[in-house]
Amino acid sequence: MSHTAEIIGVGTELLLGNVANTDAQDVSRALSELGINVYFHTVVGDNPERLKRAVGIARGRADIIITTGGLGPTFDDLTKQALADAFGKKLVYDEEQAEIIKGFFKDRARGMAMTENNLRQAMLPEGCVVFSNGCGTAPGCAFESGGTHVLMLPGPPRECRAMLEVCAVPYLKKLSQYEIRSHNIHIFGLGESAVEARLHELMESMENPTLAPYAKESEVMLRLTARARSESEAEGLMAPVLEQVKAALGDIIYGIDAQSLENRAVELLSAAGMTVAVAESCTGGLISKRLTDIPGSSEIFPGGIVAYGAPAKTSLLGVAPGTIAQYGAVSRETAVEMAQCARARFGADIGIGVTGIAGPGGDGSGLPPGTAFIALAHEAGAYCRAPSIFRADDRVRMRTFSACHAFDMLRRHLTGLPVEVAVF
Amino acid sequence: MSHTAEIIGVGTELLLGNVANTDAQDVSRALSELGINVYFHTVVGDNPERLKRAVGIARGRADIIITTGGLGPTFDDLTKQALADAFGKKLVYDEEQAEIIKGFFKDRARGMAMTENNLRQAMLPEGCVVFSNGCGTAPGCAFESGGTHVLMLPGPPRECRAMLEVCAVPYLKKLSQYEIRSHNIHIFGLGESAVEARLHELMESMENPTLAPYAKESEVMLRLTARARSESEAEGLMAPVLEQVKAALGDIIYGIDAQSLENRAVELLSAAGMTVAVAESCTGGLISKRLTDIPGSSEIFPGGIVAYGAPAKTSLLGVAPGTIAQYGAVSRETAVEMAQCARARFGADIGIGVTGIAGPGGDGSGLPPGTAFIALAHEAGAYCRAPSIFRADDRVRMRTFSACHAFDMLRRHLTGLPVEVAVF
Repeated sequence: MSHTAEIIGVGTELLLGNVANTDAQDVSRALSELGINVYFHTVVGDNPERLKRAVGIARGRADIIITTGGLGPTFDDLTKQALADAFGKKLVYDEEQAEIIKGFFKDRARGMAMTENNLRQAMLPEGCVVFSNGCGTAPGCAFESGGTHVLMLPGPPRECRAMLEVCAVPYLKKLSQYEIRSHNIHIFGLGESAVEARLHELMESMENPTLAPYAKESEVMLRLTARARSESEAEGLMAPVLEQVKAALGDIIYGIDAQSLENRAVELLSAAGMTVAVAESCTGGLISKRLTDIPGSSEIFPGGIVAYGAPAKTSLLGVAPGTIAQYGAVSRETAVEMAQCARARFGADIGIGVTGIAGPGGDGSGLPPGTAFIALAHEAGAYCRAPSIFRADDRVRMRTFSACHAFDMLRRHLTGLPVEVAVF
Repeated sequence: MSHTAEIIGVGTELLLGNVANTDAQDVSRALSELGINVYFHTVVGDNPERLKRAVGIARGRADIIITTGGLGPTFDDLTKQALADAFGKKLVYDEEQAEIIKGFFKDRARGMAMTENNLRQAMLPEGCVVFSNGCGTAPGCAFESGGTHVLMLPGPPRECRAMLEVCAVPYLKKLSQYEIRSHNIHIFGLGESAVEARLHELMESMENPTLAPYAKESEVMLRLTARARSESEAEGLMAPVLEQVKAALGDIIYGIDAQSLENRAVELLSAAGMTVAVAESCTGGLISKRLTDIPGSSEIFPGGIVAYGAPAKTSLLGVAPGTIAQYGAVSRETAVEMAQCARARFGADIGIGVTGIAGPGGDGSGLPPGTAFIALAHEAGAYCRAPSIFRADDRVRMRTFSACHAFDMLRRHLTGLPVEVAVF
């Protein structure tokens, strides 16, 4: 039997636009992976009457209702009371949850006083399954009534995500006789529509597993999902498709179930026992920042120089003034020399050099904003890419895209692939 | 007459959890500033029947319906067709929009071919007000039918935001006899609850204008909003409150209607004709990256050194090995010397130095992850802050917070305020 869920976000802050409804995104993603259909999201404020109306509508079009928010102490259990009323249940005091809440304030709240309101969070619908909150005080819960499953999760995204994973997903899995498994295929070097074009027939012909593309900033991800009676059966369904996708896309796939391009680069550097140093102009520190976002990156990253002004490129980094005079600060030659200098300055195995015009203004050279040269220098030579950048007017995208190219060049170099292949 | 709006997001990608519904947030915020109530958000997939049901429900509870998404070429004008059907209107071909779409492909799409689907975007409800799309090809529109106003905006957040500001807000303003004006008060140096505590009585006693706090990453923003029959009357209502807020919070207010801490720092540096160079350890390039996010920052930022490993701190940046040996790489003394070296290396007026332990692991020194020292060196001396960081386990927050401190120290130094005031 196929289930249909509706997600109801509760919170006036969502209707005022103070925050985006990321809880709905998190819950939707989890439901999608479980193979549960979601046809509607609703958001309603901290208002019991309107919440009850929204629940009434949701009951008519879904058999799983998941609420997020409205469990906190300040709004007096708005969500629990409204849902309990809607399904004719009473709220009862849960001793165990009360003890947990008391314990939280004793151990972890660092001097915050517990109020009576906090204990009201221990009031839960009679006969429900209690979802303990690992990150905060508000417990969630689930119950079934007349064929409808109701799950209530807390609003703060950290708490919602944790309870979703630890409590709600296992609860929902029991509603299905199927196991759902998926793999993410990460791609850099081809746009979403070009990826779809290569896989169009395959994607159209599939029912289980399914293959769906997701465009990310400068990247594309494909998610392969299978539904089966066991994990191994699901994996068996996916294996041949994974091979077909690999055959169709080849080495522009940078990872399966990988975290990010920079994570992949850091992994490969660590495995090779190598280091990378960076000289950045237009990216202004972004490449260094993304490398050091990763815990433990100090093992592979001695440092970088942000040579934003021209003098820093020569005096501090060591690019020959003649190179800049002859070819320009934004040129293939300067990028390569920046990479070589980064390598030399930090005594690193590999150097990355990036120079370009982030825009929106030009640099007086006549080159258009959006121009970028990304170079990689190693012991035995150097490469340089000059990707064509689609939106010349987008400073953020130009910088992100240039950084992604640097990580992709690292990956390709470290896995013995041709680095300069013109993919964009 | 007070209006009530409902926002309907159209897009299966929202229901699958691929993206968060940031359009609803952007539209909600704009409506809130216009004094228009929002009681519900709905999200529906790329399915005409379900969209029509959602529109039917929205008509019963709102007199303004704003849709986002479903205007692109691939889904055949799903939203426009469904809304036109729901309100008994025909779609007609708009010559002017067709010319704009053709022009977009000619001038800006660099070799992307225009398809017939693209021209279908020029089909619009008869008699509507056309909203031109400044960032993409899909036009939006608005019409009124039987007392209900319908506005359709594109889904891609950039396009939605631009059309909201340029077209939708002016359209909605005409529906109200009031002018809504607001000012954003930007604060660094006090948490949200402490800000609220200082202003609690003032906030409780106000009806028009209103004052509401918004927590941002490492910062707090207060929004002051007034409703009046004219702009000058609204400003007149806000002026005395603005003075009261300034009196209560003082110099932790870093700007009124400012863009960001780093923008404020760049503005002040530009105005003073001064430059800043940066030496970063734990922040790993984040400070340089945030400075260079700002177009034109090359005027005030010659560059930075990411001295992530210990050797880079001495050999490349020039910190005395004895300083590190005596006080440690993570120390007040090293941070100050890093700032001084950054200043010297780049010939800048001001140097920033940051060293710390981003975590989650320690550095072997016994200092806890989350420890940070942020120093500013200038012609006549130096300061250093060692903020207490609440969440020692959050690498992202620790780095963001340290960068914010650096920008705040720049601001305070450049405006003659005491820099080392211990605010956290």
